[in-house]
Amino acid sequence: MRKAILYIAMSLDGYIADQSGGVSWLVGDGSDSGHPGSYPDFIQTVDTVVLGYRTYHQIVSELSPENWVYHGLKSYVLTHRKLASTEEISFTDQSPADLVSKLKNDSGSGIWICGGADVVNQLLESRLIDEFFISVIPTVLGGGVRLFTAERPMDLSLLSVLHYNGIVELRYCLRNPPNPV
Amino acid sequence: MRKAILYIAMSLDGYIADQSGGVSWLVGDGSDSGHPGSYPDFIQTVDTVVLGYRTYHQIVSELSPENWVYHGLKSYVLTHRKLASTEEISFTDQSPADLVSKLKNDSGSGIWICGGADVVNQLLESRLIDEFFISVIPTVLGGGVRLFTAERPMDLSLLSVLHYNGIVELRYCLRNPPNPV
Repeated sequence: MRKAILYIAMSLDGYIADQSGGVSWLVGDGSDSGHPGSYPDFIQTVDTVVLGYRTYHQIVSELSPENWVYHGLKSYVLTHRKLASTEEISFTDQSPADLVSKLKNDSGSGIWICGGADVVNQLLESRLIDEFFISVIPTVLGGGVRLFTAERPMDLSLLSVLHYNGIVELRYCLRNPPNPV
Repeated sequence: MRKAILYIAMSLDGYIADQSGGVSWLVGDGSDSGHPGSYPDFIQTVDTVVLGYRTYHQIVSELSPENWVYHGLKSYVLTHRKLASTEEISFTDQSPADLVSKLKNDSGSGIWICGGADVVNQLLESRLIDEFFISVIPTVLGGGVRLFTAERPMDLSLLSVLHYNGIVELRYCLRNPPNPV
């Protein structure tokens, strides 16, 4: 079965965006700014990306208006808006859990859970995220959009740690994964 | 000037105690349970420990009723209760900021800020913590006592990373420390 992988960055105090939704603080401490981190390797392990509408909208309106940043991946955007899907981007009004459950049973490689927090926490409550790849940014934001709000506890096993430029990438899997359906 | 060092453990979702104040989840993933972590080295760098009354009370009533766990350190317990200090333990009704500011100007080695969250966040708001030694426990608790609630942002520099038994110890200093007073 395909794995759903949360690959995301948070501040040391657990925020993925500041209070106005901004992500300009997603930088290291300047000690090794040329290091590419795990992204080039990670992106080879996934062929699908799942994201919420606000995350999608922020990407296309602010971060990269010209080109779809996840070109080459099959992209799913969760929204109740009636938007025309393209070959690259499918807009769907399925719940995150329904979509990801279905995708896991399709053939393919990893499924990147890209955010935002609502999508992530609905999937956490359903225990549908298999791996966690969390980049801890060397800053305390003091407020914003929290990554973890799900109330379901879960134990993890550490798979690897990578650090560069003050950023620490923590990679975990579920310690007691549920049996595949 | 002496440094105030936060040395504490939190869950991946940022809690230092569960919803009933419990800390039984402060364990690794079992992959390397004999590793001592950084504690033996850390404890050599401090001669003083500062903690709130609830943390103190939990230690003496539940965790180690027989012996004071920080024997050999000068201990300060912040409380408005009128309790008789001993040679080892001083009970004080000073604010965390007043106490730690004063201690920093005394002679000695490092000052361990041990918790709980109220003490930590009052010191964060006053920017009085110089180093952060945070052990990330491989679990998502889903609720409890949050480590970071201070609203004051601060940028950090990563000093080191150590991992063992699924626990990742992140060590930071303030990126732009204020000038010493």
